[in-house]
Amino acid sequence: MSEGAFISFEGPDGSGKSTQQRLLGEYLTGLGYSVVSTREPGGTRIGEKIRDLTLDTENREMDALTEAMLYASSRAQHVAEVIRPALEQGKVVLCDRYVDSSIAYQGCGRALGGVVADINALAVGGIMPGLTIFIDIPPETCFDRIGRCGGDRIESEDIVYHRRVYESYLEIAEKFPNRVKAVDGRRGAGEVQADVRAIACGYLGQRA
Amino acid sequence: MSEGAFISFEGPDGSGKSTQQRLLGEYLTGLGYSVVSTREPGGTRIGEKIRDLTLDTENREMDALTEAMLYASSRAQHVAEVIRPALEQGKVVLCDRYVDSSIAYQGCGRALGGVVADINALAVGGIMPGLTIFIDIPPETCFDRIGRCGGDRIESEDIVYHRRVYESYLEIAEKFPNRVKAVDGRRGAGEVQADVRAIACGYLGQRA
Repeated sequence: MSEGAFISFEGPDGSGKSTQQRLLGEYLTGLGYSVVSTREPGGTRIGEKIRDLTLDTENREMDALTEAMLYASSRAQHVAEVIRPALEQGKVVLCDRYVDSSIAYQGCGRALGGVVADINALAVGGIMPGLTIFIDIPPETCFDRIGRCGGDRIESEDIVYHRRVYESYLEIAEKFPNRVKAVDGRRGAGEVQADVRAIACGYLGQRA
Repeated sequence: MSEGAFISFEGPDGSGKSTQQRLLGEYLTGLGYSVVSTREPGGTRIGEKIRDLTLDTENREMDALTEAMLYASSRAQHVAEVIRPALEQGKVVLCDRYVDSSIAYQGCGRALGGVVADINALAVGGIMPGLTIFIDIPPETCFDRIGRCGGDRIESEDIVYHRRVYESYLEIAEKFPNRVKAVDGRRGAGEVQADVRAIACGYLGQRA
């Protein structure tokens, strides 16, 4: 390959996407690909510091737009420091969450709307995944899973919020059918991984 | 007045704009206006924290776009917390530096170009000054002034950079002649203030 490949993983918390990314990374490495595995938010030292600002409970007066811009600033740094250099070196970049997460969680979940997509388009300067694997699992099922692992009691407003996020993901998948491929995440990790590998290899094969 | 008025001050460091803003604020208060005087970057607690990140010398690997986005994040918070509420309460807001500073310093000085204007348009959500007072003074004169006050030795590359910033200001003034009014800043503070008052009162009178 003369140019790298960029694959992002999306889905609700508890969907198992981090596990799927790790398994795919190991598989692709075994096939001889040079793989860089990273995640958002964070991924860089400066990004972590920006993230600390957004999570600091002292900062309760933070405006929703400020927060969305801080996430995008962290992403700009991630692109400049990690993603773009890796792609320029011909590597396969796997990233746990990217622009779609911001659109689903801030844009839709917090009702900021289209401005989140606009901010992020400026932040990434054209660096978008060629393939996005969406682990499709309804929020109610995720809640059951997290709950079984000892999570907090689920409030009804949480379900409404996460339902809105989930529907935003479905809209994104519908809007970008060439880039976003949904995988049924309600099955066991091995079955899900078989689909993930088939999709990823199909994508990498086309580009070879 | 049913709606507030927003006046920004722009110009190079050492142009005396902070003094001019303070004098105008005192004058307008004396006339019975309710004045809020603020400055950028900063202006809010969260804004100061964001500013600390950009100034931290540990963060040398910070990308120029990340930095521009952090400044814009700080501005979004400033608008949400200080500027928009004051305008909604019918106050006169005076602000030392605003979007034009980012365009002149990051956009032009660091060669990021039009993306800086785009990022800031999203950050301020339509809140732009109705009047911008540009203290027009060539960078060479500012350097002489700062130098006389015990500043660092002026490197030739500094002059090239600040010359570019100054020319960017002139371009902005030419592009937005209705909003941006230049005042010759090479004179004494009292003479400059007479012009500043005339322009500000003309603007506020039109709106009354």
